[in-house]
Amino acid sequence: MVDQDACSSVGVEPPALSVLRWDGSPEGPAVVLLDQTRLPSQEAELVCADVPALVQAIRTLAVRGAPLLGIAGGYGVALAAARGEDVARAAELLAGARPTAVNLGYGARRVESAYLAAVRKGADRGAAAEAALAEARALHKEDAVASARMARYGLELLAELLPGGAHRLLTHCNTGALVSGGEGTAFAVALEAHRGGSLRQLWVDETRPLLQGARLTAYEAARNGLPFSVLTDSAAGSLFAAGEVDAVLIGADRIAADGAVANKVGSYPLAVLAKYHHVPFIVVAPVSTVDLLTPDGASIIVEQRSASEVTEFTYPGAGQAGPEGAAAGTGTRPAQAYNPAFDVTPPELVTAIVTEEGVISPVTGAGLAELCARSSQVTIS
Amino acid sequence: MVDQDACSSVGVEPPALSVLRWDGSPEGPAVVLLDQTRLPSQEAELVCADVPALVQAIRTLAVRGAPLLGIAGGYGVALAAARGEDVARAAELLAGARPTAVNLGYGARRVESAYLAAVRKGADRGAAAEAALAEARALHKEDAVASARMARYGLELLAELLPGGAHRLLTHCNTGALVSGGEGTAFAVALEAHRGGSLRQLWVDETRPLLQGARLTAYEAARNGLPFSVLTDSAAGSLFAAGEVDAVLIGADRIAADGAVANKVGSYPLAVLAKYHHVPFIVVAPVSTVDLLTPDGASIIVEQRSASEVTEFTYPGAGQAGPEGAAAGTGTRPAQAYNPAFDVTPPELVTAIVTEEGVISPVTGAGLAELCARSSQVTIS
Repeated sequence: MVDQDACSSVGVEPPALSVLRWDGSPEGPAVVLLDQTRLPSQEAELVCADVPALVQAIRTLAVRGAPLLGIAGGYGVALAAARGEDVARAAELLAGARPTAVNLGYGARRVESAYLAAVRKGADRGAAAEAALAEARALHKEDAVASARMARYGLELLAELLPGGAHRLLTHCNTGALVSGGEGTAFAVALEAHRGGSLRQLWVDETRPLLQGARLTAYEAARNGLPFSVLTDSAAGSLFAAGEVDAVLIGADRIAADGAVANKVGSYPLAVLAKYHHVPFIVVAPVSTVDLLTPDGASIIVEQRSASEVTEFTYPGAGQAGPEGAAAGTGTRPAQAYNPAFDVTPPELVTAIVTEEGVISPVTGAGLAELCARSSQVTIS
Repeated sequence: MVDQDACSSVGVEPPALSVLRWDGSPEGPAVVLLDQTRLPSQEAELVCADVPALVQAIRTLAVRGAPLLGIAGGYGVALAAARGEDVARAAELLAGARPTAVNLGYGARRVESAYLAAVRKGADRGAAAEAALAEARALHKEDAVASARMARYGLELLAELLPGGAHRLLTHCNTGALVSGGEGTAFAVALEAHRGGSLRQLWVDETRPLLQGARLTAYEAARNGLPFSVLTDSAAGSLFAAGEVDAVLIGADRIAADGAVANKVGSYPLAVLAKYHHVPFIVVAPVSTVDLLTPDGASIIVEQRSASEVTEFTYPGAGQAGPEGAAAGTGTRPAQAYNPAFDVTPPELVTAIVTEEGVISPVTGAGLAELCARSSQVTIS
């Protein structure tokens, strides 16, 4: 049991994180973000008063995570509308801020559509902006509801696949309240298991290069009193070999029509390890992550990020190991780097996809299409 | 082609690295090491004038890498003998400085044996110390010869397995001149391929937690003008999926009697990925790495290192991504960590073991035993 965080006493729920909020005060509309680049050492807000500022926040990962990017994209369009700016241009800028997460475009386009619908119905700019904001708020709320439903479905799936309880779950990257209008995707399932007494251990991959696991998932796990340990991404193999992983739970940035899953780089090696060790590999993501217009994994555009994320960093260990304080802080020298932000796991390696509309297992294109059809009926009705 | 290092112009061999040397000057004796914790930013020597200083250098990884640890262990015993100290105690301290690399104990015990043999033959302390130093020097030289032979055998194996040439090789951790009396193990094969014109690309895993790939292999690759790119350990999966890896080449810290290979953590996931993608997984190590007294992989003691190597880490990327200089330098917060230094790959996942005495493929206990018997005959004769 890890209990090194003052917030993490068991049984007491921590205050909800204000990860993203709309500021409608007289000083002007703004999207206010919890700056995730400053976590875990600082809980600082970043005020984005216009679309370029928000696009910049998305690019620098001050705001990140597939579902939350959808919400950010939505509020960003509402912000453009409230400022009387070109809404179509704003939606385009926001949708293109990062290429892999489909939710970003989904949120931006959905709020743009609400704005245009209001204009078509004769609303003036102010009323149309109100309609856009209402749609962004609706998206935000729906995401919170979706989180809760995914958590419930995910927990039911775990109980079915692993009837013994005492789950030892391995997760990658960050998928909790920091990525969502609610409690997240994969992390929300682990949190629900913890609350129900069936979580024995959460293994947290540090998730290089940007350490969203070691920084953000560890922060969320400590905040909620979960039993967890952080490991280098490579050490997951040893855990599988030792039989210490009962299931892998990850999120998704885009799911192609055939069920191929784009997620944070490192997900695919986990899927191969899980297959080799006969461990369930479970993807938890809202239906909005499914992109029926992308036919398969090969068609998913994977964002390549700066080499500096790999080559420029501080060497952590030497100073700790030696009582004499041997050299710490020596960086690497410039070199070429291969730095994809995501990888793609083919459907045959995915045991199940858990969504707010239910679980797909086995993962097939037909199953996904049916789910999406059902989801759009639910939304329309 | 990476050519960002002034030393790396093709066709010009860089000066040999003085990684470890005996200082017999009147002020001495001492074992002088290139301090690997300061690389790549500083090429600084560390003078170890007694055994405790050398043990400390081994523990803090100022000197590291299985074959070089054997040499360091040998010179350490010679140092104790030269200082008139308890040679048996020195050998014990050195052999136990790190638990996984078998070569450390091998080198220390071998030089201790030479010292004892001299004493038994009636040598005085000074003459016995000379005998110990001569044995350490012999070990050092033999390792250089072994490197060259492994490089040749490894290259022949590559030519046989991958007749098309233009090899794209993936390696993990650091296995070049920095770990050896010569040019190393796995890296020496890649270097030989480069010299012979058959290396198209060396993929260098950064190798968390201590980044020996990004710091040391990148340094050696640049120094020798190899075409290479650094990647996070997790990104290797994407390279396999894209068909960009023709073979994996790694070293070893201990090889059990059944052929199970202990090597830097992250090797086992690569072996599973290689198996899944039908890519050869090749281990390059001197015969001294084989430990017939360890029956199998489960019997190998894996060193667990400090949690701080995982949890205390500087976040590298944010400052680069944002022109406004978004927060960099935010560390992770304290948490439990799982931090094994090594993992164990079972023989069925190893395509071949390349040694200075020849190649074993398939990897079997009988093959290893035969090789060790042949090697000891060679050494005795």
